[in-house]
Amino acid sequence: MEIKKAVITAAGRNQRLLPLQTVVDRDGQQKSALRILIEETLSAGIEEICVVICPGDEPAYRTAAADHAARLHFVEQKSPLGYGDAVMKAREFAGDDAFLLLVGDHLYLSMESRSCARQLIDVAKAERCAVSAVQATHESKLPYYGAVGGRLVAGRKNVYKVETVIEKPTPTEAEQKLIVPGLRAGHYLCFFGMHVLTPTVFRLLEGLYAPPEEKKTIHLSDALAGLAARERYLACELAGRRYDIGVKYGFMIAQLALALTGKERDEVLTNLVELLALRKV
Amino acid sequence: MEIKKAVITAAGRNQRLLPLQTVVDRDGQQKSALRILIEETLSAGIEEICVVICPGDEPAYRTAAADHAARLHFVEQKSPLGYGDAVMKAREFAGDDAFLLLVGDHLYLSMESRSCARQLIDVAKAERCAVSAVQATHESKLPYYGAVGGRLVAGRKNVYKVETVIEKPTPTEAEQKLIVPGLRAGHYLCFFGMHVLTPTVFRLLEGLYAPPEEKKTIHLSDALAGLAARERYLACELAGRRYDIGVKYGFMIAQLALALTGKERDEVLTNLVELLALRKV
Repeated sequence: MEIKKAVITAAGRNQRLLPLQTVVDRDGQQKSALRILIEETLSAGIEEICVVICPGDEPAYRTAAADHAARLHFVEQKSPLGYGDAVMKAREFAGDDAFLLLVGDHLYLSMESRSCARQLIDVAKAERCAVSAVQATHESKLPYYGAVGGRLVAGRKNVYKVETVIEKPTPTEAEQKLIVPGLRAGHYLCFFGMHVLTPTVFRLLEGLYAPPEEKKTIHLSDALAGLAARERYLACELAGRRYDIGVKYGFMIAQLALALTGKERDEVLTNLVELLALRKV
Repeated sequence: MEIKKAVITAAGRNQRLLPLQTVVDRDGQQKSALRILIEETLSAGIEEICVVICPGDEPAYRTAAADHAARLHFVEQKSPLGYGDAVMKAREFAGDDAFLLLVGDHLYLSMESRSCARQLIDVAKAERCAVSAVQATHESKLPYYGAVGGRLVAGRKNVYKVETVIEKPTPTEAEQKLIVPGLRAGHYLCFFGMHVLTPTVFRLLEGLYAPPEEKKTIHLSDALAGLAARERYLACELAGRRYDIGVKYGFMIAQLALALTGKERDEVLTNLVELLALRKV
């Protein structure tokens, strides 16, 4: 199983500007969030990248991609029909190949030497199937994520066979359908915003569309639920964290996480101490 | 002296996107940096605002201004001829009135009940003259700022009569021309990025232009040096801090400063503790 293609979705109407923001990476270099994501994929052996954007955003994204612009293909999502629809726009790009899928409003921090994307692709290649990265997440955060239920694969740590996928489950649904043996109480396997998917997912997405006038939102999670029923489909807890830069304080927290685990940790700590001395007015 | 007009410069080619970024304000509300700046001016009694932008940026700025868009006038700076030239674009808007000038890539945090802009305008009204906000700044940061030399106004704390203005002075120049009695050793009065100016500044800026083919950069500091020679012109240290969101880690530091002095201090501190536990990889 070769994985040489990546898809980055960045067409959400409130998320469009996020990948263009400047972030200081762990190496101390200022880059756009988009460039950090592109470098995440390259570290995992990806050669071609498709970015799903809002109409008109291509020039700004090309600029933000800097040296990597030549690797990028752009497709536009013309109507905001949901994450599943955004992924569907990359169908032609993916063709018959498995592909890595990232969201443009997250940054991924690995806590080991391999990047998060590399860790995930290593699992997908070893297991020869679709794999979603997941993170054990407290039930209070279920309203923000898709979540999976399943059981540990025998002999593997942190790898689960997915049996159920539910988008933003209620606590009751989660308790009934998504309990995973071995996780801390009150915790569920929620999506990390990074997947390796097979082209089967496009056929499953296709089946979710209603007539255009209904403007139905297409959820990727619904296609993934179908995938679990049809193919071997795994979930894997990575040694890393995902930071959603679109939520309240998200950008600041992601930047702090990068800075505090990067080469400029000491300078940033010095700034922090000064800031902690500020008082409420 | 009535001050009802403000000018915000946001046409710097590397700064254009900064006022559009989303920031969580001290009140816990998510707003664009532009909106925070607009609210800073409104808190000081400003009624009309002129924003100097790059050609084509008006729609994005109108969106970012949200409810305040109706108060905004836009003028474009077509060529990047410097900060002085950007200010000059607001000449017609200002007319014969004194005006408040802010830079679009800074956020201003007051450390008292009045906003920074309010404090500055109160001084300008009391003294009936142009006033620049300044901050005692270590000499290591002179390469980033314009700096003033002068002496304390008798009977006033933190208010100086400006005698000299130099843009980005060298340490030697600063030591020879900008020592201000009473400041800590190695510290100089550097601009805070907020001024109340009289229309005289436009006549002085006009005199700085060379023939267009020379593409000369027009520095506001040069006009302010002329202002000091011509009119009563003061500098004032405010009870507050300025945060440049365009420099490395600038956005993160500004956001932390807002968060740690605002109503969500406790939640943010909780996040910080978790982040401090992250390790270098």
